[in-house]
Amino acid sequence: MFQMKKICIIGGDFRMICLGRQLEESGIFVNYFGFEKMTSVSPVYSDLENALDECNCALLPVPLSRDGIHVFMPMSDNKLELNGELSRLLKGMRIYTSNAEMLIKSGDYDSDQIFDYFDREPVKIENAVLTAEGAVCEAIKNSDYSLYMSKCLVAGWGRIGKPLCRLLRAFGADVTVSARRSDDLTWIRAEGFTPVHTNEIINSGRYKFIFNTVPHIIFTKDILENTAADALIIDLASMPGGVDKKACEELNIKLIHALSIPGKTAPQAAAAVLKKSLIEINETTRRNTSWKNQL
Amino acid sequence: MFQMKKICIIGGDFRMICLGRQLEESGIFVNYFGFEKMTSVSPVYSDLENALDECNCALLPVPLSRDGIHVFMPMSDNKLELNGELSRLLKGMRIYTSNAEMLIKSGDYDSDQIFDYFDREPVKIENAVLTAEGAVCEAIKNSDYSLYMSKCLVAGWGRIGKPLCRLLRAFGADVTVSARRSDDLTWIRAEGFTPVHTNEIINSGRYKFIFNTVPHIIFTKDILENTAADALIIDLASMPGGVDKKACEELNIKLIHALSIPGKTAPQAAAAVLKKSLIEINETTRRNTSWKNQL
Amino acid sequence: MFQMKKICIIGGDFRMICLGRQLEESGIFVNYFGFEKMTSVSPVYSDLENALDECNCALLPVPLSRDGIHVFMPMSDNKLELNGELSRLLKGMRIYTSNAEMLIKSGDYDSDQIFDYFDREPVKIENAVLTAEGAVCEAIKNSDYSLYMSKCLVAGWGRIGKPLCRLLRAFGADVTVSARRSDDLTWIRAEGFTPVHTNEIINSGRYKFIFNTVPHIIFTKDILENTAADALIIDLASMPGGVDKKACEELNIKLIHALSIPGKTAPQAAAAVLKKSLIEINETTRRNTSWKNQL
Amino acid sequence: MFQMKKICIIGGDFRMICLGRQLEESGIFVNYFGFEKMTSVSPVYSDLENALDECNCALLPVPLSRDGIHVFMPMSDNKLELNGELSRLLKGMRIYTSNAEMLIKSGDYDSDQIFDYFDREPVKIENAVLTAEGAVCEAIKNSDYSLYMSKCLVAGWGRIGKPLCRLLRAFGADVTVSARRSDDLTWIRAEGFTPVHTNEIINSGRYKFIFNTVPHIIFTKDILENTAADALIIDLASMPGGVDKKACEELNIKLIHALSIPGKTAPQAAAAVLKKSLIEINETTRRNTSWKNQL
Repeated sequence: MFQMKKICIIGGDFRMICLGRQLEESGIFVNYFGFEKMTSVSPVYSDLENALDECNCALLPVPLSRDGIHVFMPMSDNKLELNGELSRLLKGMRIYTSNAEMLIKSGDYDSDQIFDYFDREPVKIENAVLTAEGAVCEAIKNSDYSLYMSKCLVAGWGRIGKPLCRLLRAFGADVTVSARRSDDLTWIRAEGFTPVHTNEIINSGRYKFIFNTVPHIIFTKDILENTAADALIIDLASMPGGVDKKACEELNIKLIHALSIPGKTAPQAAAAVLKKSLIEINETTRRNTSWKNQL
Repeated sequence: MFQMKKICIIGGDFRMICLGRQLEESGIFVNYFGFEKMTSVSPVYSDLENALDECNCALLPVPLSRDGIHVFMPMSDNKLELNGELSRLLKGMRIYTSNAEMLIKSGDYDSDQIFDYFDREPVKIENAVLTAEGAVCEAIKNSDYSLYMSKCLVAGWGRIGKPLCRLLRAFGADVTVSARRSDDLTWIRAEGFTPVHTNEIINSGRYKFIFNTVPHIIFTKDILENTAADALIIDLASMPGGVDKKACEELNIKLIHALSIPGKTAPQAAAAVLKKSLIEINETTRRNTSWKNQL
Repeated sequence: MFQMKKICIIGGDFRMICLGRQLEESGIFVNYFGFEKMTSVSPVYSDLENALDECNCALLPVPLSRDGIHVFMPMSDNKLELNGELSRLLKGMRIYTSNAEMLIKSGDYDSDQIFDYFDREPVKIENAVLTAEGAVCEAIKNSDYSLYMSKCLVAGWGRIGKPLCRLLRAFGADVTVSARRSDDLTWIRAEGFTPVHTNEIINSGRYKFIFNTVPHIIFTKDILENTAADALIIDLASMPGGVDKKACEELNIKLIHALSIPGKTAPQAAAAVLKKSLIEINETTRRNTSWKNQL
Repeated sequence: MFQMKKICIIGGDFRMICLGRQLEESGIFVNYFGFEKMTSVSPVYSDLENALDECNCALLPVPLSRDGIHVFMPMSDNKLELNGELSRLLKGMRIYTSNAEMLIKSGDYDSDQIFDYFDREPVKIENAVLTAEGAVCEAIKNSDYSLYMSKCLVAGWGRIGKPLCRLLRAFGADVTVSARRSDDLTWIRAEGFTPVHTNEIINSGRYKFIFNTVPHIIFTKDILENTAADALIIDLASMPGGVDKKACEELNIKLIHALSIPGKTAPQAAAAVLKKSLIEINETTRRNTSWKNQL
C-alpha cells in the first residue's frame, strides 16, 4: 500500500480544488500549482519546483491537456508544457493523471510511476450517474414543460442512459429508449421502458425532451425535421456530440450540448469519486505495477 | 355542461399565456388583456370592454392580486382595479378566478357566475408535484454536492413533501423526513425514509440539502447554528416561509426561497393543470352552482 | 413510563408466540396461557391464576374473541370466558388488548388499566404494508400469469392500496387504481398509475389480477360477468369482503379471500409491529390515562 | 419471413401447452404429441407420424431431454428417442428446439432447419425477470419474517440478481449484493444497494433472506456456520446450485432450491416469452440461415 504524504496538485478546474480539500481532510498535505486566480486556495506556488518540495506524489488534472501541448490550467495565467523538463521535475514521484498515454509519450517517465485515476470503470460509472443527475437539472431548467407526464427519448442504453432513464421515470415521464442490440432492447423493456431500435427513431415529434448519450451523429437533419418545435435536446455525448448542430439552428430547435457535467454541477461529488479512485489505486498497487497492468 | 366559446384572459404571468394557447388548441377563441409587454401574444387589447366583446367567459389570474387592490398584471404597464366597475363589465359572464372570496367582496358579483379554478385539491396536488420537480432542479443547480449519496432533510410530509422525498430517493439520496403526527411518521418509515419528529431536528449538521415545505418558522436560529456551513436550504413554503432568513445571512448559510415554482420552471405544465381544472368545472357544473358549493 | 416486568400472554395464534419471544429477548419474563398445543413454548400454564402469578401486565390476543363470548385461543382445547371472573383475576394489572371496547363491557374493569395496542394508526399502517407484501405473494402463487407486464386493478387507495400499487409497479405491472374522491384520483395519476372512478370499473375484462381492498361489495355480478375467465381476484377486505363470492363460483372465476395476512405469512414481522406498539404505549402513557384518551 | 401454418408440439411441460394455446390464438394450427395425461389438450396424437401430418414446423421442448436419450415428455407415459428415426420424421420441416447442439448430434439433421428458440439473450433476460418474481414469492411464502425491513443478501449481479435486487428494495428490504468485479461493485452501489465482495460474505448472520444466483458453491459450510438459524436461503442457480446442501441440513438452515421458476409459477408468461422468440426467429431468418449464424 502506498502512503500519500504530501501531494502537489498541478492544474485543473474547481473539481481539483475540491479534491485537494478532501485530501487535506484525510490528513494529507497539499501544495497547489496553477491556481493563481483562486484566492481561497493555499498554499499556491508559482514555481513548480517549490511546489513539489517534500511531495511524494503529484496529481495532474482532468483532462490532462486541451491542446496536447500544455497542462490544462484554466485557473492560472501561466503555462506548463508537457515535456522532458516536466518529467525531470517529477522524477521518482508517484504521478496520478488522466490520459496516461499522452503523458508517457510527452517525456521521460518510468511507467511504474504513472497511475491513471480517471480511465477506470468505477470512475466512469459514478461520473455517469452524476452526469445523469445534472442532465435532469438541465432539462427542467431549460424547458417550459415538466418531466412529469412528458414523453422523453433517451438515445443509448449505456453508463449514462441507464441511470438517466430511471431518474426520468421517477419524475413520472414516459420514457422511450433507443438502442441497437437485441439484449439491450430486451433489458429496456424488462425495466419497463419503451424500446425503439436506433434506426427507427423517426417519429421524434412525440418527444418534449430528447437526451443523447451516443458519441456519433444519430440526430441527423432528417430526424430533426420531424422533431417537435418545442422539444428540448440535451446532448451528453463528448465532442462532437450526436446531434447535427447546424440543422438544429436552421430548424430553430433548442439544443444544449452539456459537457463535463459532474465537474460543473457537482464538483464536490465529482472530486469524491476521484478521491476514491486514488485510495483504491494506493490500496491495490504494489511496487512494479505499471499503469498498463491496471487496465 | 358549460361550453366556452370565447374567453378573455385578464392579466397574469407567462403561465396564463400558455393556458391561452392551450385553450386555442382546443378550438376556443381567446382575447388577451394586460399583456402589452408580450409581443408574441395576440390579439392583445388595451381596452377591457373591447377585450370582452363576444366573450362568454373571463379568466382572472393566479394570484388574483398582489396588493389586494389591482389585478395581478406583471406583463402590462396599465392597472386594472378590483372594483364595482370591473364587476359591471363582467356581468353575465362566467368568471374563472383564483382567490374567489377576494373577488366576490370587491364588486357586485353574482356568486353563481364565479368559479375558483385554483383552490381545488386536484390543482393543488399536481402543482405540488411540479413544485417538487422544480425543487430538485434548484437543489442540483445551487450546490457543489450531488443529491446522489447525500443526506437530505425534508421538513413536512404533505403534498409537496411526499413526491419530493420519492424523487430524492430516486437520485440515491439518503432521505430523512420530519413530521409531527405519529401516522405520518409511520408512513415515512413504511416508505423507506428515516422519520424524525419535528421537535428533534436538531442535529441538522448532517444534511447537505434541506428542503422546507412547512409554512411557519421551523428552522430557527438555534437549529441553523447546527447546520453545516456548506448545506443548501431550499424553502418551498409560501411567504414568510419556514426558515429564519436573517439567521441564515448571519451564519452565511445558502438559502433559496423558491416561490411559485411551477409557473416559473414549467409554465406549460402548470397551464395544463389549470386547463384540466377549467374543463372539470365546465363538465361538472350546472346552472345555479355557486362557487361555494364546489368546496 | 411503565416498566413491564412479567407479562402473561393469554391466547391468540402463532403471532402472539413470536411476540412473546421478542419480549423475552428484551429481558421481560413471559408466562403463556392457552397454548397447550404448542410444545415449543414454555412456560405454558393450564391455570390462569398460576399463569398470572407475579405478572404486572397481561396481553389479550388479536382478535380478542371470535364468538364474542370466549377469548380467541386456537392453540388450546380449553375455553376462557370474557366475564367478571376474568376481570377479577386481572385486577390491578395493566392489560394490553385488541377490541378494548368489547373487553370493557365484558367485566368489571378500570378503564385506566386497559390499553388497546391494535387500534392505533401506526399498527394499522404497518399491518397494511405487510398485507400488501403477502397479497403480492398470493397473486404470484395462484396465477399462471406473471405480474410482470400484466394489467392489474387495485380497488381502493387506502392503507393497503397505496403500498400494494407501488409493489405491483416494481414488478413491471400496468396498474389501474379505482377510487371515488377526486383528490385520490389525482394522487393516483400523480404517482403514475391509471385512475378509474369506482363507478366505472366495468371493463374489468382487461385485468389478469384484481385486488380488492374496499370493505363492501364493489365487484358485483354485473362487473364479474365482464371479468376475464383467467383473471385472479384477491380480496383483502375484512369479512364479508368486497366481491360477490357466489357470482365468482357461478362464473368460475378464481377468488381468494385472503384474511389476516400479516399474522399468517409474516408472524415475526407482525409481532414486531405489535411489540413496537406496546413500547410506545409504555413510553407515552402516564397514570390515569384511560384507553379513551389514546384515541 | 417464415410463415408457421401448422406446428406439432412434441413433449414438454405445461408451459408448452400454454405456448400451443397462444399460437392457436394467433391463428396457427397446433397438433400435440406427448400429452396423453392432459385431458384438456386437443388434438393429442399418440403416433408422431400422424401428429406431424400437414405440419410445416415442429417444436421440441425445454429442456430437450433430461437423460440425453429421450425427449422430455413428463405428460406422457410413452417414450420418444432422440435418434435417426426422429430426424427422418422431421425431414424438411423447420424445427424449433432448445439445446440445438444435442439435437443436431442425435440424428441426421440439416443445420438450416434447426432454430434454437431458448439459447437467445432476450429469452434469457425475460426468464430471469420472471425468475426474480417467483423468487420473491418463495421468500415471502417460506419465511416468518417479511421482506419489509429485513436484511437480504443477493449473491451475484447478473441477469437474475439485478431485477431481484430492485424488487427486494421495492418491498423495503435492506439489500446487500455480492459480486467480484469492481465495475459490478460500483454499479451495485450506484443503484443504492450495499456492495460486498464475494470473498467477504462472512458475516452472513445479519441476513434473514439469502438469495443465490451464482452457479457454483459460494455458500460453503464455513459461511453457513455463521448464518442465522432463522434465515431462509433460496438457491436460484441451476444444478448443483451454489449452496452446500449437506451443511444446511446439518446446521438446520432452511434451504429452497428453486429451479425452473418461470415454467412453474408463471407458465403463461414463460410461454409468451417463448412465443416472442419464435416470432423473432421467423421474422429475421432467411433461407440458408443455420442455427449457428444466429448466435
